[in-house]
Amino acid sequence: PAQRVSGFGDSVFAEFTALAIAHSAVNLGQGFPDFAAPDFVKQAGAKHIVESNLNQYVRSMGHVKLVNTLARHYAPADRHNNPSINPMTDIVVTAGATEGMFATFQAILNPGDEVILMEPFYDAYPAQITMAGGVPRYVPLRLKAAEARNGTSDDWYLDLAEFRAAFTSKTKAIVLNNPHNPLGKVFRRDELEAIAQVVCEKNVIAISDEVYEHLVFNDAPNRHIPLSTLPGMLERTIKLGSAGKTFSVTGWKVGWVVAPAPIARAIFLAHQWIPFCVAAPFQEAVADALEHADKSGFFDEFQVALCKKRDRLMDGLKQGGLPGILPHGGYFVLADTSSIWPKLQRDLQSGDANPSQPHDYTVCKQLTKSVGVVPIPPSSFFTPQHQPSVKDLARFAFCKEDRVIDEACRRLQAFG
Amino acid sequence: PAQRVSGFGDSVFAEFTALAIAHSAVNLGQGFPDFAAPDFVKQAGAKHIVESNLNQYVRSMGHVKLVNTLARHYAPADRHNNPSINPMTDIVVTAGATEGMFATFQAILNPGDEVILMEPFYDAYPAQITMAGGVPRYVPLRLKAAEARNGTSDDWYLDLAEFRAAFTSKTKAIVLNNPHNPLGKVFRRDELEAIAQVVCEKNVIAISDEVYEHLVFNDAPNRHIPLSTLPGMLERTIKLGSAGKTFSVTGWKVGWVVAPAPIARAIFLAHQWIPFCVAAPFQEAVADALEHADKSGFFDEFQVALCKKRDRLMDGLKQGGLPGILPHGGYFVLADTSSIWPKLQRDLQSGDANPSQPHDYTVCKQLTKSVGVVPIPPSSFFTPQHQPSVKDLARFAFCKEDRVIDEACRRLQAFG
Ligand SMILES: CSCCC(=O)C(=O)O
Ligand SMILES: CSCCC(=O)C(=O)O
Repeated sequence: PAQRVSGFGDSVFAEFTALAIAHSAVNLGQGFPDFAAPDFVKQAGAKHIVESNLNQYVRSMGHVKLVNTLARHYAPADRHNNPSINPMTDIVVTAGATEGMFATFQAILNPGDEVILMEPFYDAYPAQITMAGGVPRYVPLRLKAAEARNGTSDDWYLDLAEFRAAFTSKTKAIVLNNPHNPLGKVFRRDELEAIAQVVCEKNVIAISDEVYEHLVFNDAPNRHIPLSTLPGMLERTIKLGSAGKTFSVTGWKVGWVVAPAPIARAIFLAHQWIPFCVAAPFQEAVADALEHADKSGFFDEFQVALCKKRDRLMDGLKQGGLPGILPHGGYFVLADTSSIWPKLQRDLQSGDANPSQPHDYTVCKQLTKSVGVVPIPPSSFFTPQHQPSVKDLARFAFCKEDRVIDEACRRLQAFG
Repeated sequence: PAQRVSGFGDSVFAEFTALAIAHSAVNLGQGFPDFAAPDFVKQAGAKHIVESNLNQYVRSMGHVKLVNTLARHYAPADRHNNPSINPMTDIVVTAGATEGMFATFQAILNPGDEVILMEPFYDAYPAQITMAGGVPRYVPLRLKAAEARNGTSDDWYLDLAEFRAAFTSKTKAIVLNNPHNPLGKVFRRDELEAIAQVVCEKNVIAISDEVYEHLVFNDAPNRHIPLSTLPGMLERTIKLGSAGKTFSVTGWKVGWVVAPAPIARAIFLAHQWIPFCVAAPFQEAVADALEHADKSGFFDEFQVALCKKRDRLMDGLKQGGLPGILPHGGYFVLADTSSIWPKLQRDLQSGDANPSQPHDYTVCKQLTKSVGVVPIPPSSFFTPQHQPSVKDLARFAFCKEDRVIDEACRRLQAFG
């Protein structure tokens, strides 16, 4: 195999999905809804296959109806200072935000170019950066001092001095993930302003992974703020969005990139040779769904429904002895496993705890085996250096049926 | 933009699709069916969205039901000597064969590695090779001497001495496209044996783009022969297939790669960071469709129906003064435009004929403007050196409604 792939292994999601199956465990691992997508979304998908016959190649940059709808959907918020997104030049519809991110790195990175990632980071970023010949540089999101914490995802913060120090003459871009996976953090306006100021001063590109933008809860410090709306950022921000996350259809693989025309053009030039275009009937269906949702209040309804699931899981975890850090957006809770570790430890068999593996990884595997509940070890989102900062945490997904959340909590409580 | 994309422009398909729209021309350009996909295919797609709720991420290497079905579908033919394809290790389901090809080059090429392409070549190959740091090397498919021709795509042949001469110490792989786009050639067993022998002797990988494998006509020199079934080829062949071409759903973007397990593994390692996985409901639907088609005789029926369209177009083109080279498979006819060129030439306006552009490109653009019929200039599939060999040809797609084919021919006849 080529060198670029020879260091890769199976992703943590594949590994823990396999574990879930092997142990018939309740799967709160990989972030996908296990409930049915909304009927208006599914019906639109079926209609454009069967009735509209939209089953052939469409425009490589994106089906015209979807890019027009996206431009209207985002215009008021994302292009605050410049209300028009040009749908034909500023948007690329991609095979999920994952392909959007891959094509972005292919489009902007030359060998040796550096990209600053905040830890924890979504596991695809470093792999995609290295595949483009780039070099990831890391800066941690730190947990506030104990006395300053309020037990929410707002307790994680970026140290601006550390952020600044990560820039070199080779820095080409930074990646922001807001709302953040796995922290559940929704960045505050003042934090975004500070980040934007450094990014503008350093004159680099900002890649803003906003796939959870529509999943921000009412108790967040503020609503979701698109990075492109910060002063000076419109012309340097590449924003990624996701139909999968927005409409609970992660398996449709429809995402998009919104960027200034010259950057969007470069991303398209890569994208045209990667998948060429994205599933046609789903593009039209996502356009219908966005139009419907913008009128019907769906986004607010879904956010409220998902927030109830968050609270249900937080409560259940707490009763099982695993207090969580309250997330303000997204699919995930990070919960403290330290109180049940002694009991888990008793079940360890030889080989279960490999001293070279992070502690949280051992804990998560043992939760699968002893308790029958599958989380994801958050160390997967860190470089080895910073893995110890999450050694007592496990990531649990709450984008699941209530009965699934309840069964997971029941098992934890029965074990504890 | 990054250097790897800065040499790219819009593909010839985007350009001629735009021309078709601008001139309200009959579009026989890009290869996609303009008729509805079969009902059993469309119904399966809708069912797995609405009823089965298969709308979430699935296994990155491929949905289990689809890889099992593919293994059964291919086993008798492709693995002649070794009847079992291991569905879990030897197949990667990709976002169309295009992403399959992209991921393949990412998985096998290190910078400087060479890949031998036969001219004409599908336009994505060189772009994808250079994006992986590889170097394309070209060998022409040559047209037999006039007296040896029979007016079919069998008139194109690979000169084995030229093929051999293209290998260097850096050659990593060759690409075969069979059935061939744009030639419509179906390689004969003796030709494949000769290619296989050289490939084995040189100990390189063979990438076999067989997306038109199910579209081989009854008058071909032989049925489609998978390259992997040739002696010594099983362990070095990467085969690409396409649901889009097989079931007339190019817009579903479902393709696959079948390869020996270690190579498939490397392709998966790239693929997991590109789209991660492929549209879930479509994977299940394609599995259903393959099972149905294997039982119902669909493949033979469709090939016969498409062959009627080929003959319809060949006849109509001939009556319009553009005799075609009879293709034995695929979607396309190459037809001789030399007799209508003098008339087209009279309509040229200043700027229409740029001396730096290939002659067939000028002809195809002028066919769009003067006649209202859109072909694709075959020089797009050649390096500049060999473009003159197709200067009098234009590529017309016949995967179109009969009334569309007829209208195109009517316009050509009226003009001629
Ligand atoms: C593409 S698999 C990962 C799904 C996800 O976003 C997560 O679980 O973090
Ligand atoms: C991906 S666009 C090209 C479609 C096609 O295969 C062709 O027209 O040659």
